[in-house]
Amino acid sequence: MRLFCSIAVVLMVTGSAIADPLPSWNDNAAKAQIIDFVGSVTDPASPEYVTPIQRVAVFDNDGTLWAEKPVYFQLLYALDKLKQKAAANPEILTSATLEAAAAGDMDAVAKSGEEGLLEIVMASHAGLSVDAFTQDVANWIKSAKHPTRNVPYTDMTYQPMLELLRFLRDEGFDTYIVSGGGIHFMRAFVEEAYGIPPEKVIGSAGVTRYAVVEGVPTILKDPGIAFIDDKAGKPVGIDNKIGKKPIFVGGNSDGDFEMLEWATSGDGPRFGLIVHHTDAEREWAYDRNSHVGKLVRGLDEGPDRGWLLVDMAKDWNRVWSGSPN
Amino acid sequence: MRLFCSIAVVLMVTGSAIADPLPSWNDNAAKAQIIDFVGSVTDPASPEYVTPIQRVAVFDNDGTLWAEKPVYFQLLYALDKLKQKAAANPEILTSATLEAAAAGDMDAVAKSGEEGLLEIVMASHAGLSVDAFTQDVANWIKSAKHPTRNVPYTDMTYQPMLELLRFLRDEGFDTYIVSGGGIHFMRAFVEEAYGIPPEKVIGSAGVTRYAVVEGVPTILKDPGIAFIDDKAGKPVGIDNKIGKKPIFVGGNSDGDFEMLEWATSGDGPRFGLIVHHTDAEREWAYDRNSHVGKLVRGLDEGPDRGWLLVDMAKDWNRVWSGSPN
Repeated sequence: MRLFCSIAVVLMVTGSAIADPLPSWNDNAAKAQIIDFVGSVTDPASPEYVTPIQRVAVFDNDGTLWAEKPVYFQLLYALDKLKQKAAANPEILTSATLEAAAAGDMDAVAKSGEEGLLEIVMASHAGLSVDAFTQDVANWIKSAKHPTRNVPYTDMTYQPMLELLRFLRDEGFDTYIVSGGGIHFMRAFVEEAYGIPPEKVIGSAGVTRYAVVEGVPTILKDPGIAFIDDKAGKPVGIDNKIGKKPIFVGGNSDGDFEMLEWATSGDGPRFGLIVHHTDAEREWAYDRNSHVGKLVRGLDEGPDRGWLLVDMAKDWNRVWSGSPN
Repeated sequence: MRLFCSIAVVLMVTGSAIADPLPSWNDNAAKAQIIDFVGSVTDPASPEYVTPIQRVAVFDNDGTLWAEKPVYFQLLYALDKLKQKAAANPEILTSATLEAAAAGDMDAVAKSGEEGLLEIVMASHAGLSVDAFTQDVANWIKSAKHPTRNVPYTDMTYQPMLELLRFLRDEGFDTYIVSGGGIHFMRAFVEEAYGIPPEKVIGSAGVTRYAVVEGVPTILKDPGIAFIDDKAGKPVGIDNKIGKKPIFVGGNSDGDFEMLEWATSGDGPRFGLIVHHTDAEREWAYDRNSHVGKLVRGLDEGPDRGWLLVDMAKDWNRVWSGSPN
């Protein structure tokens, strides 16, 4: 036991003295700002010290932790499923949006907005048990490839953000996902991809129902939307599920504006971060005019509100988790 | 550091060798069943071993962790608030149930059922920010007294259940509350009362809304019910918030039946527990015919399903946390 303790002490000392917690971030002001903040809220001698129980960090998923182009990855899964279902049962296409989706009209789909996308997602996802659905997503995520980059979707998580998540957890933060994406869709892969367990995933949700199906107690996915975790829904979802105001919040679009606004208001140290997609070479460059990840207010108001605008091209020396690019 | 480690080892060894984790439980079969289960799922050498990440325990609140007679304690808070509000603004009494409540007609209130109670609760709770509401409940719970026992409500938590919660946490379980009670009401006191933090509270919820009020980002409580965490709603709430099926589940009424049924189904070791109110002398004796905590299916089917029926009178040598009785 004494030997074990001594080894642990040595590891702790060498670890903190040598390791860079954010090696994929360039050594510039953005990285320094993050490290300074985390250092000040975790130092018991600092006036900014925050107890571990209040160290709550929340992150959007699409465009913040992984890519979202050409469209949300969940939508690509949903379109596959919707086409399969509509081929067997065309009357599930109960709206113009659903008909466009099944016909592969991606422009119409993209223009249908967050609610249209959710309509497609919910229509394509309903009718399975949660367990069967999760298994189906897990199978898809292991085999499907991105339409233009031709790599698995989980290779398109952002290495710098994975490092940030781990850094925060190592410093006593609880890290949550707060995404417009579907809660059961995300849970199928986020624990492996991000180290975030199911209970720390907040997302949009279809209607679910408990029933005993052929003797087996089951949670079923029904048609309909129970909760849209976007825009003003994000603070509501955080309050409902966590019951504490986060002190660290990361997003990339105006869908994250209210979450950033709320979490960075009030007393005590608070950190707002926006991933700005500036890198057309390694990733995509978009903001004000994009149908996914549209960023207007965040760009216009973020700096005055003290939020860090992360410039992908300048601040990250590596983008993808799946390849060193 | 070596000295610290040695002291820790000594404390661990003496602690596990001597301390009874459940001193308020009589040394009989019920206590042995709980201790055997926890021992088997936490012993890596046991075929029943469960990894810490899957050790999820959920408990109903009213009638399971604290008392619920003569009516749910949240209702007593709500009636106080409703009377105050109706005196200033009678048109909030928009139904026969609300009128009966404001008039103090407890029989009518009791007979209005779970939905009637929620209607009263939501009508009385709406219109405040979540922060202001939580503060109001926290003030109330510190000053209010139970109508017949004349002690603070937090003295009426069950000491044996507090010990069980702590025992499970000491053995690596995550402990959650899953209650028909309101989520914001419970969060005002459950961390102090049970050691359960806000993010591990699942409950019924009124409609909430994010808004910037006079420059302050705020979560507001609106009229209306967003979720009823009772009966078949309990497994739905657990799936939505935790995303894992618990392996230990405790309740006391048929409102907990579906949660018990779901959580005790499937592979692996599972423990279902029902607190049976048998002690008219120290607490109350009720089950089949009570308007709160009605227990019929649990009594009839629980034993065949392998659920432990805890007999308060026989299994607990102490009931209340607030007094040794």
